[in-house]
Amino acid sequence: MPPAASDAAFAVAFTHRLRFTRDVLDPANPVLSEVLAPAEGSPGKLLVFADEAVLQNWPTIAPRLEKHLAANLPWMTLAGEVTSVPGGEQAKNDWSVFEQVARMICESSICRHSFVMAIGGGAVLDAVGFAAATAHRGVRTLRLPTTTLAQGDGGIGVKNAINAFGHKNFFGTFAVPWAVINDEQFLSTLSDRDWRSGISEAVKVALLKDSAFFDYIEQIAGQLARRDETALRPIVRRSAELHFQHIANGGDPFELGSHRPLDFGHWSAHKLEALTSNRVRHGEAVAIGIALDSLYAARIGLLPEQDAIRAVNTLRIIGFDLYDDALTDTSLFEGLEEFREHLGGRLTITLPDGIGRQVDVHEVERDEMLAAIDWLKSLVESRRSRTA
Amino acid sequence: MPPAASDAAFAVAFTHRLRFTRDVLDPANPVLSEVLAPAEGSPGKLLVFADEAVLQNWPTIAPRLEKHLAANLPWMTLAGEVTSVPGGEQAKNDWSVFEQVARMICESSICRHSFVMAIGGGAVLDAVGFAAATAHRGVRTLRLPTTTLAQGDGGIGVKNAINAFGHKNFFGTFAVPWAVINDEQFLSTLSDRDWRSGISEAVKVALLKDSAFFDYIEQIAGQLARRDETALRPIVRRSAELHFQHIANGGDPFELGSHRPLDFGHWSAHKLEALTSNRVRHGEAVAIGIALDSLYAARIGLLPEQDAIRAVNTLRIIGFDLYDDALTDTSLFEGLEEFREHLGGRLTITLPDGIGRQVDVHEVERDEMLAAIDWLKSLVESRRSRTA
Repeated sequence: MPPAASDAAFAVAFTHRLRFTRDVLDPANPVLSEVLAPAEGSPGKLLVFADEAVLQNWPTIAPRLEKHLAANLPWMTLAGEVTSVPGGEQAKNDWSVFEQVARMICESSICRHSFVMAIGGGAVLDAVGFAAATAHRGVRTLRLPTTTLAQGDGGIGVKNAINAFGHKNFFGTFAVPWAVINDEQFLSTLSDRDWRSGISEAVKVALLKDSAFFDYIEQIAGQLARRDETALRPIVRRSAELHFQHIANGGDPFELGSHRPLDFGHWSAHKLEALTSNRVRHGEAVAIGIALDSLYAARIGLLPEQDAIRAVNTLRIIGFDLYDDALTDTSLFEGLEEFREHLGGRLTITLPDGIGRQVDVHEVERDEMLAAIDWLKSLVESRRSRTA
Repeated sequence: MPPAASDAAFAVAFTHRLRFTRDVLDPANPVLSEVLAPAEGSPGKLLVFADEAVLQNWPTIAPRLEKHLAANLPWMTLAGEVTSVPGGEQAKNDWSVFEQVARMICESSICRHSFVMAIGGGAVLDAVGFAAATAHRGVRTLRLPTTTLAQGDGGIGVKNAINAFGHKNFFGTFAVPWAVINDEQFLSTLSDRDWRSGISEAVKVALLKDSAFFDYIEQIAGQLARRDETALRPIVRRSAELHFQHIANGGDPFELGSHRPLDFGHWSAHKLEALTSNRVRHGEAVAIGIALDSLYAARIGLLPEQDAIRAVNTLRIIGFDLYDDALTDTSLFEGLEEFREHLGGRLTITLPDGIGRQVDVHEVERDEMLAAIDWLKSLVESRRSRTA
């Protein structure tokens, strides 16, 4: 009789592709053809969903995509129209976008080797991506992130999600997209808030992993505050690259362990978003979360005080409002347990112990965190009064 | 500026555990402690869902599990009661079981490192597994399959699913369970149909991969027909082992390619289940599908005729009814396209070209398949008239 116990260790191989370009739909732009080339011989269907705000700003996406395919990818056919989906957090606050995408995958006979393309901010990529990742147990996905946040962080990752039961990202999967294409042209039509808000994730990854990158952001913070597009582009690109490298080389792309450095500052950020019903947007909340945890790291003697102040000042100069009254909500600290529960295992918070360096801690001293909140408030208020 | 294009190849490592035992809840049975040992130090919560039919036959599961944990796994706590869920295909025909499981994961504060245990047939494992695989992007799962089919095939795999839009398994993910524990005791209370139906998957994998195993099944087919439990056990175990090895060593556990040998006979089986509104159960439909595709393989000169007849006779002697009028439904052949669409890419059907050997074909000759259906009908009818 065969053995009573079998353990098998096996690995699943993935390829993750990241591209930076301008005007991907230009008939002369080779990026789309190049990333799709390995799939030639596949059924060659492409089903496209786009953020309604993006379609308003870029109304020629559908005809240009059709022309681009005809000129460059004759083996690929568009399945139906480009479908508009609501953008922002509402895209993932219920099952409606998920349901719409899944139904169209079914009705358009999209198979596992066909493609779903999602064009939009992080929430649209999340909701469309979750449907594409679970229909037929996973259809190939092309992501075209359109916001600073999605191009520099969320769109690069291998996660998708919708919110449920009052919990952000309660449902989702880890799924490696076929390719992520960052088209810098989309950044030009963002609102000032959306243009700015993703820069916090660049500051985050710089603080943890790359001191030279932090120095650079600090140096050009004023240009970013003035919405200088040429200043933004290398920031987004380096941020995306660092997030991409973390997934490819960090050793735990599907987060089976508890070490989660890229969630620095996120325990309070997620809670702030919920406490303010998304009045504070993700990138803005992350700016606050980074500032707070940097000051906390200084208070517990982990990070030199001047480094914490540099982090706070850089974010402030870029234009982030780093204090919100929701920080004093007594339920803020529930965010720690929600963070632990969502990620699993032991509470693990990553903090910088120098600029460009990081360490994991497994508990948070509540009094010191409360003191860090007060400190953050006083830093913001003294600046406000000086400006006034 | 960082490069404009980055490709990263990376691998995600998984461990798959398979155990065979009898009475896993016996306080002296070490299997559960042993498979959970690597997780000690985790939050140690266990949330349990069981097939209502299984709970009726084994009403002491909940108190015995509690005692087992107290005696053997003091670091593990049961989250609430053992929850009963409907069994059979209805468990996965809508979102209700999924929703119930997900809500309880949320309310019981089950994190990614906690455990969901699913006890039941394949449909229960599928629906509970899909919820557990998407809540928090994947909670650890223990599978205790209770049917011949689930112990020998479905429960061993790394797939989960629910049905939607009239398509079997439309939604699902690939997710490696923490462990699969086959407790042979559960087989004793199965109905004769459920006891028998999973044997078809053993015949399937034997025909494709292991001629000695096929010879053995052929030899003891009469004992299986008489519901001889000692004859069944090694069959289930070898079938499970071959399916397990295919996942671990087959090179494509998440089915990113198109080669899908373990779906031999399944294109018509899935369609028969749908056409008969599940009157023909999965294992029974697979028996018909294997018989049909074996005769087809003989007709196109791939498989020696006497080998096809051996396959048909072995299934018949075990007790399978190998012909159903739904085979003449004109929509049967839509099953081929649905099969292709679900799996993705080019149509790829695996057929035996000898007992214990296999080859992929990429088209099906409709006339020959129709002739194979007639042939199967005549074989079954001649036997019926002889028996009458």
